[in-house]
Amino acid sequence: MIGVGVIGYGYWGPNMVRNFSEIAEARVVAVCERDAERRALVERRYPSVRTTADRSELLADPDIDAVVIATPVDSHFPLALEALQAGKHVLVEKPMTESAEQGERLIDEAARRNLVLLVDHTFIYTGAVQKTRELVESGVLGDIYYYDSTRINLGLFQHDVDVIWDLATHDLSILDHVLDARPVAVSATGTSHVPGSPENVAYITVYFDGNTIAHVNVNWLSPVKLRRTLIGGTKKMVVYDDLEPSEKIKVYDTGITLTDDPRQIYNMLVGYRTGDMWAPKLNGTEALRAEAGHFVDCVLGRAKPITGGDMGLRVVRLAEAATASMKRQGEPVSLDPMP
Amino acid sequence: MIGVGVIGYGYWGPNMVRNFSEIAEARVVAVCERDAERRALVERRYPSVRTTADRSELLADPDIDAVVIATPVDSHFPLALEALQAGKHVLVEKPMTESAEQGERLIDEAARRNLVLLVDHTFIYTGAVQKTRELVESGVLGDIYYYDSTRINLGLFQHDVDVIWDLATHDLSILDHVLDARPVAVSATGTSHVPGSPENVAYITVYFDGNTIAHVNVNWLSPVKLRRTLIGGTKKMVVYDDLEPSEKIKVYDTGITLTDDPRQIYNMLVGYRTGDMWAPKLNGTEALRAEAGHFVDCVLGRAKPITGGDMGLRVVRLAEAATASMKRQGEPVSLDPMP
Amino acid sequence: MIGVGVIGYGYWGPNMVRNFSEIAEARVVAVCERDAERRALVERRYPSVRTTADRSELLADPDIDAVVIATPVDSHFPLALEALQAGKHVLVEKPMTESAEQGERLIDEAARRNLVLLVDHTFIYTGAVQKTRELVESGVLGDIYYYDSTRINLGLFQHDVDVIWDLATHDLSILDHVLDARPVAVSATGTSHVPGSPENVAYITVYFDGNTIAHVNVNWLSPVKLRRTLIGGTKKMVVYDDLEPSEKIKVYDTGITLTDDPRQIYNMLVGYRTGDMWAPKLNGTEALRAEAGHFVDCVLGRAKPITGGDMGLRVVRLAEAATASMKRQGEPVSLDPMP
Amino acid sequence: MIGVGVIGYGYWGPNMVRNFSEIAEARVVAVCERDAERRALVERRYPSVRTTADRSELLADPDIDAVVIATPVDSHFPLALEALQAGKHVLVEKPMTESAEQGERLIDEAARRNLVLLVDHTFIYTGAVQKTRELVESGVLGDIYYYDSTRINLGLFQHDVDVIWDLATHDLSILDHVLDARPVAVSATGTSHVPGSPENVAYITVYFDGNTIAHVNVNWLSPVKLRRTLIGGTKKMVVYDDLEPSEKIKVYDTGITLTDDPRQIYNMLVGYRTGDMWAPKLNGTEALRAEAGHFVDCVLGRAKPITGGDMGLRVVRLAEAATASMKRQGEPVSLDPMP
Repeated sequence: MIGVGVIGYGYWGPNMVRNFSEIAEARVVAVCERDAERRALVERRYPSVRTTADRSELLADPDIDAVVIATPVDSHFPLALEALQAGKHVLVEKPMTESAEQGERLIDEAARRNLVLLVDHTFIYTGAVQKTRELVESGVLGDIYYYDSTRINLGLFQHDVDVIWDLATHDLSILDHVLDARPVAVSATGTSHVPGSPENVAYITVYFDGNTIAHVNVNWLSPVKLRRTLIGGTKKMVVYDDLEPSEKIKVYDTGITLTDDPRQIYNMLVGYRTGDMWAPKLNGTEALRAEAGHFVDCVLGRAKPITGGDMGLRVVRLAEAATASMKRQGEPVSLDPMP
Repeated sequence: MIGVGVIGYGYWGPNMVRNFSEIAEARVVAVCERDAERRALVERRYPSVRTTADRSELLADPDIDAVVIATPVDSHFPLALEALQAGKHVLVEKPMTESAEQGERLIDEAARRNLVLLVDHTFIYTGAVQKTRELVESGVLGDIYYYDSTRINLGLFQHDVDVIWDLATHDLSILDHVLDARPVAVSATGTSHVPGSPENVAYITVYFDGNTIAHVNVNWLSPVKLRRTLIGGTKKMVVYDDLEPSEKIKVYDTGITLTDDPRQIYNMLVGYRTGDMWAPKLNGTEALRAEAGHFVDCVLGRAKPITGGDMGLRVVRLAEAATASMKRQGEPVSLDPMP
Repeated sequence: MIGVGVIGYGYWGPNMVRNFSEIAEARVVAVCERDAERRALVERRYPSVRTTADRSELLADPDIDAVVIATPVDSHFPLALEALQAGKHVLVEKPMTESAEQGERLIDEAARRNLVLLVDHTFIYTGAVQKTRELVESGVLGDIYYYDSTRINLGLFQHDVDVIWDLATHDLSILDHVLDARPVAVSATGTSHVPGSPENVAYITVYFDGNTIAHVNVNWLSPVKLRRTLIGGTKKMVVYDDLEPSEKIKVYDTGITLTDDPRQIYNMLVGYRTGDMWAPKLNGTEALRAEAGHFVDCVLGRAKPITGGDMGLRVVRLAEAATASMKRQGEPVSLDPMP
Repeated sequence: MIGVGVIGYGYWGPNMVRNFSEIAEARVVAVCERDAERRALVERRYPSVRTTADRSELLADPDIDAVVIATPVDSHFPLALEALQAGKHVLVEKPMTESAEQGERLIDEAARRNLVLLVDHTFIYTGAVQKTRELVESGVLGDIYYYDSTRINLGLFQHDVDVIWDLATHDLSILDHVLDARPVAVSATGTSHVPGSPENVAYITVYFDGNTIAHVNVNWLSPVKLRRTLIGGTKKMVVYDDLEPSEKIKVYDTGITLTDDPRQIYNMLVGYRTGDMWAPKLNGTEALRAEAGHFVDCVLGRAKPITGGDMGLRVVRLAEAATASMKRQGEPVSLDPMP
């Protein structure tokens, strides 16, 4: 039985508490939250869970083996570091940290102490992303031409991070998980429409080795909500629409065929192929539930982190590069190979 | 009665001939086309229209007042120039030319000879774009935050122009027509997935003076066809979906409200507003028919070109800048004010 | 403060307990449920709520002013009657009873004792149905030509009631609430595809005085879920799609115009009119929350029941007539005016 | 080479002329049309086709082997009879005749003279209906539970036939072609909302032997256009949406499983199964072109009619029964086995 402490009971913390409560091998021991009303809410919903406004109390609790951090981004690094130093395993909300440097520091600390460091890239645990990875890995799609995601809606404006760190990090983690290719350069554009606020519209292009290209369109100011990703491959193509109630993943037997007949050199070299469409049934388990279970498995030594500190760091590095490029109106930023 | 000659009877030429045939004040006198089978098709469909494989014959015909050029892009400039020099009014397919320099040359020639030079930016003549312009001009949308277009489908790969010149020029012309703002810089990314072929995927960001931003996503390799544009304003927002059979334009009473209460300086400054949605009835006239009629009106001196050489040139300059940026992975290209 | 007892903690009971728990003027005192595991669930979630397997205990509790009945249909009548006889106000799930006779008995009992009898026709409390009624009542739609609803999905097969009593009663209540017309006859068809089970597909036509007609298509065996109602009026028409996340109600300025020019007697007398479409913003309060609040208001004498026993009875009479017609392959059944 | 004469150049006639013009083994010899302007249109479009206002002239023409009848319904019988008596093969628009008696008369006449009698049930020649029939015949769907079609739009009001004869005959022909079951009874309801005009809304239920049931919802007064058919089978289910541009047929691996465990007799006997969805690629040939080609094949003795007089008659008998039921508010009408 793993004792779990949760820091932060704002927007996402309640989902963490609810999911860990339903796992047989975990027990939510305490919740740390500054706001008294929010603490009262925990007490009403979970009479057996202790609450505190003081994180030191939670970190000192010997009944707590693992800490979940569900707080604003700027506190991820100090809280995660402190928790690791207190000997606790850590599950931290995405993005893992505000900078790659901080991320590296956390990875080192967790490695030195032999503790689990998991990052809450929830989408990786959805049936849709699992199926997408399976389609890519198994070669069903062929070589990947492009990944093109649109993730837009009205709000919620964040005041500490821009729309890249808030929304695009979802796609950067999916890219990292699904594609077997190394990003080599990033170009991003975007702007803020609210004086004094971070960028609320951004467009990111990631170049990979080979000729795979990825693009992410994120926007906090859209009148409609869209969550749609296209993946083009040499053999098949995928449309992943996360708002579809039942057919989130559609696989199209669509593509082009190239002619290398030299006599056609002045004619069209590209032919088109369209065939059946197929929407595979997806695993319907709630993603956060699967993630919580996976975290427990990692702590118990039964699994290796799927979205560990290393992935968290790669996402942060891409987001850093994208932000830097966006500040310079799209000037490309090269990505060094990870050490 | 205007005598019209059409050069090129491939993909788009038949639509030109059909539309000019139905205009009372125009008469299609001759069609010039190299391919004998295509010429035979014209003869079967329009027994009274002369056909020829020799453009000089058409240009020398005194019954022809105006020439429509519906040929590959690289022939637009020489054919349009020759037609103007022969004293004919010209309607040329988009993009007007392969370079801004060529475009300026055509504008000069038309101006010197007092001839009409119209560019076939067909979308400008649709009810949907007319309504969009009306919504922007009348102030219904407020100040424009962004324009975000996705224009993707499978094929047709072109071998002479890339996907920017083929598809994005539609959006660049709509931007030019609808927004009352000057583009100041362009960043574009993209790639080719077919060795030896032009880029088939591209993403263009256009920065305008003020803080309006535009983005265009074009792709010849998509498993699904999308034609969707979002326009965000301070007062209202528009979704324009050209594939909707009847409700192409939807106006959302959606937006944000900013707090300037200094006591809230550390809190969220942005509130959300959502209200009714409204889909106005659109003018359903075929756009090309309206354009053909407008061309006749211009030739008869009854109207000034809506999509004249000046607009054609602005579109070419944006496409040139986008292509240059794309070759350098998104490095921004500044746009000088038009002379 | 109203003390509330809930009988039944199966599929719908938990929603009742949750909603009454959140109302300031109500307190859930006890839950009666036969299944020990389900009772344990109540205890875990609501430590302060008493549980029992014996309804007599709940009905004898002087702290309980009102009873919510969330049990299978065949127990609605005996439980509601017993509760009324024990002096409790009653909120009973739809359909109110298995027969009109039973319904009349409950209405009498409630009237004699001056108790509130409310039926849980939840849809009536949605923003969408409220807006629809408002559009009809205010005359915006003109005279009503037809109401046409499709309410289909896969499962849940019921073993005590057929698809008319399970799904169509939603539409029959909406019809009753929205239309200002008296049903005069019903014809229904349908069949069972599972031997020994009630009908799982049914089609109901209701004729009203005037020439308004209503049709309801219900099906437990559909591969896709649909919840769509069309309402045609002389002035405007409505499409109400309950699965649309944000634009559930669309009002079309569409219709026909009739010519009475006698010279046109041999020609078409009908012209068409299409105009704008408008999707009004809807009240987004959870319907069951609004209903629970309304029940409390009725008990406190501050409101008259919107979905009282009289409406519950009219719905039961229509369902009875529809079932009778369905057994005879559509033979129409006349409806007497309500006494 | 078959010589073809077309009677009627109104709404549908032009499509007939165009399609027969494109068939190598057919030649459109003459068009008969009363309206002089419409005849002029034929002459302009097809200079080599003779026109006449006198059908006797067309029927007497020895160059004409086959006659296409594209006129209002009430003239189908006399014109088809006259054409057969003149020794011409006949392709007649649907519905074949106004009554079963007339239909039988035509079938006899064609049989006696050994002439082809084909009915223009165009949908039968679409890739979507072909695929549907293939899915049923091959057993992929299992036994058929139900067929449920919605075919609604605004207009066109007909003044000679009601909405059953105009729209529902499409579904009645598809039912006849796709299902391997005999209709045994019909119940229909509907009404007219325009005084003096035929019914513009109708709902038809067809009972088949076995427990297959079909339902057709047709309406000339809908604000939106819908063309959607659900087919439920024991193994798989189909959604056929004719307005989908590319995925008209979707096959769902969805259904129920029945328990016959006697110990579960008081529990639910029905389980649910949902799996993948699959949208097969369809033959994209224009249906009317395929039909025209098939007619020529029949005339040349190379094929047997797919939509011959016998099918045309079965559709007319169903429509007759439906109309009779509708006049009596859904009272069921039994169908005798065809002789």
